[in-house]
Amino acid sequence: MAVPDILQLHPEKPTTHFDEVRAAIEACFETQQVATICADACLAEENVAELRECIRLDLDCADFCAATGRLIARQAHPQPDFWRAALEACIEACRSCANECAKHENQHEHCRITREACERCIDACQKVLDALPQGGAETRH
Amino acid sequence: MAVPDILQLHPEKPTTHFDEVRAAIEACFETQQVATICADACLAEENVAELRECIRLDLDCADFCAATGRLIARQAHPQPDFWRAALEACIEACRSCANECAKHENQHEHCRITREACERCIDACQKVLDALPQGGAETRH
Amino acid sequence: MAVPDILQLHPEKPTTHFDEVRAAIEACFETQQVATICADACLAEENVAELRECIRLDLDCADFCAATGRLIARQAHPQPDFWRAALEACIEACRSCANECAKHENQHEHCRITREACERCIDACQKVLDALPQGGAETRH
Amino acid sequence: MAVPDILQLHPEKPTTHFDEVRAAIEACFETQQVATICADACLAEENVAELRECIRLDLDCADFCAATGRLIARQAHPQPDFWRAALEACIEACRSCANECAKHENQHEHCRITREACERCIDACQKVLDALPQGGAETRH
Repeated sequence: MAVPDILQLHPEKPTTHFDEVRAAIEACFETQQVATICADACLAEENVAELRECIRLDLDCADFCAATGRLIARQAHPQPDFWRAALEACIEACRSCANECAKHENQHEHCRITREACERCIDACQKVLDALPQGGAETRH
Repeated sequence: MAVPDILQLHPEKPTTHFDEVRAAIEACFETQQVATICADACLAEENVAELRECIRLDLDCADFCAATGRLIARQAHPQPDFWRAALEACIEACRSCANECAKHENQHEHCRITREACERCIDACQKVLDALPQGGAETRH
Repeated sequence: MAVPDILQLHPEKPTTHFDEVRAAIEACFETQQVATICADACLAEENVAELRECIRLDLDCADFCAATGRLIARQAHPQPDFWRAALEACIEACRSCANECAKHENQHEHCRITREACERCIDACQKVLDALPQGGAETRH
Repeated sequence: MAVPDILQLHPEKPTTHFDEVRAAIEACFETQQVATICADACLAEENVAELRECIRLDLDCADFCAATGRLIARQAHPQPDFWRAALEACIEACRSCANECAKHENQHEHCRITREACERCIDACQKVLDALPQGGAETRH
């Protein structure tokens, strides 16, 4: 469990929302992995031609989860407006991917696993979003 | 100029906003490069301790420009809500980075180059954002 | 445990070295997270000027672990020469990062966590490397 | 032309091989873009089922070009063993992708553009590789 350990050792670790931040980092990186594998599994399916959108949205989701996971991992001085926009983008990426995966999960169980990972990631990002200071007018330019 | 060429050859290339999409792909990838180099240049400066936020925001900006550039490059069937959130996140990433770079550009010219690249990327993303269909209620779930 | 589950559901899942591939995917993604957090923790330390190389190598390591983790996650038809070169690059990235972290781990425990993650990732990549078919002359051009 | 400019402004810019380093950074980022678009174009083709390997290798190539471009962009203190392994991995990624694209370029011109970008990237990486100090025994552990 290296991630919770190292986050505890950060000299400016999150003081008020440690568990939410840690959970969102882990959810983003897990979803990156799962969506990457789902895209490749879809590519290997016989009905690949029906899975084009699923492959695209898996790749999009993996890229936004990666960028968001790295952003939250650099958590020392969050910029509220940027974090809010980033978390909302990650949530939309996961929502688009989950909606598409849901169409294929009866036929392909890897799509069910990915939908579930996306839903966990949406929840984890929403909890960080809820914990961000409101307004943020002072940081917008 | 391989990028405009290959985008022209995509079987579902953007029909109405080709120039905006192409310009945003190129701006996102350019800003990823410039911000990555700026972070490393800041690390090499004597006053690195005063550049901590600049390094962090350079890295954040590079990651969001990379994810957004890849998303727009997969442009066949844009999901309006997701694209809107992603472009807004990229714009906020560039804005945070540009604001911080502006504080250091008198002393470090690489910060000026990065601020300028971020401003070009904001413009390019805004033009794609303006071209997206409004509403998007039909795609939100 | 979504990653082992989804890998089991891939229509062309690894048949002979499933455990090695799964372990390497997880080690690469874990090291990406840990090295990203270590870079940010180093940036927050008072003696940041002595940690410049550590920050750089943390970032390099995170990027190569991410690329290698994604490569191995797309495991259906490995190209032996490419996989060998990629795994060797990931091992060198982790080795460079671990060597630098070792210099700072008495002072900064996050560097110890990162060194340990890098060492686990080296082991996991080496096991996949050992399992690859030798030679590969037929695929080199 | 922001990339050559900012590299010139790096306080520890490459003194002996500036042009080779700059060209490799640009080639890696260009190939990342082109291969990302090629993967998406392949997904949109009617014969997508015959293009599975091409899509996979495009994605692999984009990921290794991105990681290598970022590594070379952080060029202040190259570690010869790590750089050598990374450049060799990037060259193998481009070679695998170019070989696969060559099979489809009569039918799909986007595959020709990608093969050509990969070949330029191989050349650019090879020039940096040739410029690295030989041996490197002192840095290997």
